[in-house]
Amino acid sequence: MLRKSIFERNKKMKTSDALIVIDMQNEVCAGIYRREELIEQINQRILTYRKAKKPIIFIQHNDDELIKESFGWQMIPELLTASTDKYVEKTHANGFYQTELQKLLTDLSVKLIEFCGAQTEFCVNTTLVFAHGLGYQNWMQRGASSTFDSKWLSAKEIVDFYEKHLWDERFLQFLD
Amino acid sequence: MLRKSIFERNKKMKTSDALIVIDMQNEVCAGIYRREELIEQINQRILTYRKAKKPIIFIQHNDDELIKESFGWQMIPELLTASTDKYVEKTHANGFYQTELQKLLTDLSVKLIEFCGAQTEFCVNTTLVFAHGLGYQNWMQRGASSTFDSKWLSAKEIVDFYEKHLWDERFLQFLD
Repeated sequence: MLRKSIFERNKKMKTSDALIVIDMQNEVCAGIYRREELIEQINQRILTYRKAKKPIIFIQHNDDELIKESFGWQMIPELLTASTDKYVEKTHANGFYQTELQKLLTDLSVKLIEFCGAQTEFCVNTTLVFAHGLGYQNWMQRGASSTFDSKWLSAKEIVDFYEKHLWDERFLQFLD
Repeated sequence: MLRKSIFERNKKMKTSDALIVIDMQNEVCAGIYRREELIEQINQRILTYRKAKKPIIFIQHNDDELIKESFGWQMIPELLTASTDKYVEKTHANGFYQTELQKLLTDLSVKLIEFCGAQTEFCVNTTLVFAHGLGYQNWMQRGASSTFDSKWLSAKEIVDFYEKHLWDERFLQFLD
């Protein structure tokens, strides 16, 4: 049992070069699938990276429907942000699209990235697929992204489709 | 009626700077959803680009499961390929990943790309999402990509999800 517990702790403590937290904003998270569990899981990862003194990068979306400086645009209050973290604003599902993200990762000597956040099929998928294409190695914990029911698929179907069918060993490695 | 027919013909003749045809290989196309319609539609686009003397680029996948030079790896015989077309080999869902595709597009002065081929959620989505991130403008005809039923979703559900929920006006513009 001791052996297992040490192993479990190591797995939990495992960190990449940086944690990227995508779009955990009031409007994006309002009523999102598994909201409370998602926030708890992401906050745990933030605490782990903070303890390891590794960079944490918050990506924050704005566009014609999610107006900058509005309440919906702000990070959810439960999120364990700090003024010492890095923040990147974006206007497209791709966190690298017309942003400073790639330069920031280069400045921080990041090669291996852990991703989490919302929404699974939009900003999370697009940003990690683009990161992979740029040569970064990607990590993720299962359950660390979420989304909404769509007209075509439920949120659970979408998350399962990305985690089990698309991402694993192709664009990222799961930590657990 | 004449007016409409001219309009329809113009729409059909509309071409971007290059047509990229993804993974239309024997193994990838064996039993794929809407196989015959897909091939017919792609061949129509090939003929249109050939007539307009615009470049046609065939992307061809190989990996540990789709062995280079095998029957499964070869382009389907129905596809209207020509030796004067361009061919790019890849080993990942992303057609830009460790390939000459970006250099080829630069050499051909391509800014606007039309995509078609297989499979919708793997090589087609990944390649066009990456192209968008690199700054290309993407076009596609509805129905010009296809895939297989997965454990999670049917092929039709997947195509609808990408065409109606993910791609339109975000990563590409539909021609029709």
